[in-house]
Amino acid sequence: MSRVLVIGAGGVATVAIKKMAMNSDIFNDVMVASRTKEKCDKIVGSIKGCNYKTAQIDADDEEALTKLMSEYKPELVVNLALPYQDLTIMNACLRTGASYLDTANYEPRDRAHFEYSYQWKYKDSFEKAGLTAILGCGFDPGVTSIFTAYAAKHVFDEIQYLDIVDCNAGNHHKAFATNFNPEINIREITQKGLYWENGKWIETEPLSIHKTLNYPNIGPKESYLLHHEELESLVKNYPTIKRGRFWMTFGQEYLTHLRVIQDIGMASIVPINYNGQEIVPLQFLKAVLPNPQDLGKNYDGETSIGCRMRGLKDGKEHTYYIYNNCKHQDAYNETGMQGVSYTTGVPAMIGAMMYLLGTWKRPGVWNVEEFDPDPFMSQLNKQGLPWHEILDGDIEFEK
Amino acid sequence: MSRVLVIGAGGVATVAIKKMAMNSDIFNDVMVASRTKEKCDKIVGSIKGCNYKTAQIDADDEEALTKLMSEYKPELVVNLALPYQDLTIMNACLRTGASYLDTANYEPRDRAHFEYSYQWKYKDSFEKAGLTAILGCGFDPGVTSIFTAYAAKHVFDEIQYLDIVDCNAGNHHKAFATNFNPEINIREITQKGLYWENGKWIETEPLSIHKTLNYPNIGPKESYLLHHEELESLVKNYPTIKRGRFWMTFGQEYLTHLRVIQDIGMASIVPINYNGQEIVPLQFLKAVLPNPQDLGKNYDGETSIGCRMRGLKDGKEHTYYIYNNCKHQDAYNETGMQGVSYTTGVPAMIGAMMYLLGTWKRPGVWNVEEFDPDPFMSQLNKQGLPWHEILDGDIEFEK
Repeated sequence: MSRVLVIGAGGVATVAIKKMAMNSDIFNDVMVASRTKEKCDKIVGSIKGCNYKTAQIDADDEEALTKLMSEYKPELVVNLALPYQDLTIMNACLRTGASYLDTANYEPRDRAHFEYSYQWKYKDSFEKAGLTAILGCGFDPGVTSIFTAYAAKHVFDEIQYLDIVDCNAGNHHKAFATNFNPEINIREITQKGLYWENGKWIETEPLSIHKTLNYPNIGPKESYLLHHEELESLVKNYPTIKRGRFWMTFGQEYLTHLRVIQDIGMASIVPINYNGQEIVPLQFLKAVLPNPQDLGKNYDGETSIGCRMRGLKDGKEHTYYIYNNCKHQDAYNETGMQGVSYTTGVPAMIGAMMYLLGTWKRPGVWNVEEFDPDPFMSQLNKQGLPWHEILDGDIEFEK
Repeated sequence: MSRVLVIGAGGVATVAIKKMAMNSDIFNDVMVASRTKEKCDKIVGSIKGCNYKTAQIDADDEEALTKLMSEYKPELVVNLALPYQDLTIMNACLRTGASYLDTANYEPRDRAHFEYSYQWKYKDSFEKAGLTAILGCGFDPGVTSIFTAYAAKHVFDEIQYLDIVDCNAGNHHKAFATNFNPEINIREITQKGLYWENGKWIETEPLSIHKTLNYPNIGPKESYLLHHEELESLVKNYPTIKRGRFWMTFGQEYLTHLRVIQDIGMASIVPINYNGQEIVPLQFLKAVLPNPQDLGKNYDGETSIGCRMRGLKDGKEHTYYIYNNCKHQDAYNETGMQGVSYTTGVPAMIGAMMYLLGTWKRPGVWNVEEFDPDPFMSQLNKQGLPWHEILDGDIEFEK
């Protein structure tokens, strides 16, 4: 028996749950819980013959989480809720003896800033309790970290330069929409950039560094240097990395919309009093914007996310590019969700599978690159996210 | 004694009340009422030695209006509240025997559409009650209509072509802000354009017709054809007009912001349910955007609004351009408000003066061009909005 509690009922959760149901030999006892039980019922109800349970839960409420988990007794909790809620869920896991997996690291609600320190502090507690916590097991962070671990294991003796490149060349045919929770998306993009070079973090103005990169099967796209959380653990776990950066593509129109959203004050996370109710402008905007879960139907094009590395093998310098391309329509046809949800939800399911199979079971708090990448890499090919590699090609980055 | 009730406490009301206080021989008994009494107290308190009264009023509430007016017994009500509230205030005027003046015609709250028909229907009632209603006595509508009446009286036998041109070449040094109530502003600009030609109204897509016009002391500015309410009464009162249009300048950045605001759904006037509260996105945006009343301090540059006409005098064709330029800093130094509030508030005060002096007292419902323009034109020069005229210059419009 492997009892799993999934928390969350958005696009990523929908994908993860549908993929769990496709692997029902492993995922045979699952409960889906979120703030709105109807959303959970809708996901489970859409899967033919699915016997997964559902429940209502406020993931901000540690007591309620503890109560639910004491009753259901999951072996593993898969957290696909908001990053604000990582800590309450981890606390409840410790109190009830459940292992833990998430896809995005904790950030405080009132401050757009993410870092692993909050969760790394739980290492001793999880170790002592004999529980496993797997952090950041989506695509990026997640697969990008596992790609790096795979390259460190099989390709390089020493990785020296790492550029994670994330391209969404899809078109949802809406004037403006974000591909995942718009609140989290806008918080991420509007903060300062950060990259690792020669042993220290270098901060940049938001979106100030950019260059045109060529993506497989897509072509050239303007790509912007962002801070992204997997860099924090990768440069720690691979101290040979001299420079680590993260790049994401944005269209000019997207950036114009983003600039205006900030100009008019709608990206603000400081609440205003509106008719006696404290309302965060960015959260109100989220309620007005298209729901990312509804973008799938008319979404064409594809994503391309991967790692471009330069390093040494047997004293010689090599480059290596490992990536996955995911077509939005393929993702939609399989799960009803677009590619951005798909590429996050599938790795979350695979990570849970790794844990349940015992492959990634190890007391403590871990980033995904700290586990053996091989069984995960093998599942990526089977579960809809096949990867490709180019050795000694042009990675478009000099030292 | 001339008892005046001013409803509203925004930027325009602030200007009108301050100018009334500067003409205290005529405006010696004034009450200022608005939804928030503190705003009224603040305006009156900022005027040295001012004895004007203040009151709380919900201008949507006809009963409350009737009660307040029954007690205070104003001779004239100056409506500087929102256009949604014109009818409740006119009703209360009829019930309590007060005359009426406003600066913007009625529009229903749930439909961004303004026209005079709603208010013209009150003609008989006001006439029978022996009360005067003066509609649209700001700058545009208001002064632009009076400019036209002045040209019809003194310059032309027959006005054939009329272009009202409204340029704001000011800079408030904010990323984005509207110059008056952003809700009303955005509703106005995002609706379809409309102009009068050869006896019928022609509708255009929003902002689809534009041309570069040269404004005195400012230079060339891209100007967009909009529907504007004074055209509706002017082509009716001057049936010789073959073509009547209204043009307003917008910068490219302003239009980009406006487009994005629409794209993201924040210009919508359809309420959404947010945490159990029905909220109109555009009204929420208004609460987030800078308050137009706070723009004055750093606002430089000037406005230029006027009428460009072509017509016949003694059988010969002439052109005529009559306009006012208003510097934002001059307006701010005098009243604490920027030029857009100033150019609306001063004419409202002059219109009230015209009524109180008996010059514009005539039972019925009237647009301002139906009164004698001369005493009003004379006051414009005295009250801070001097006008200039160019006979037979280049008006930049062909027939």
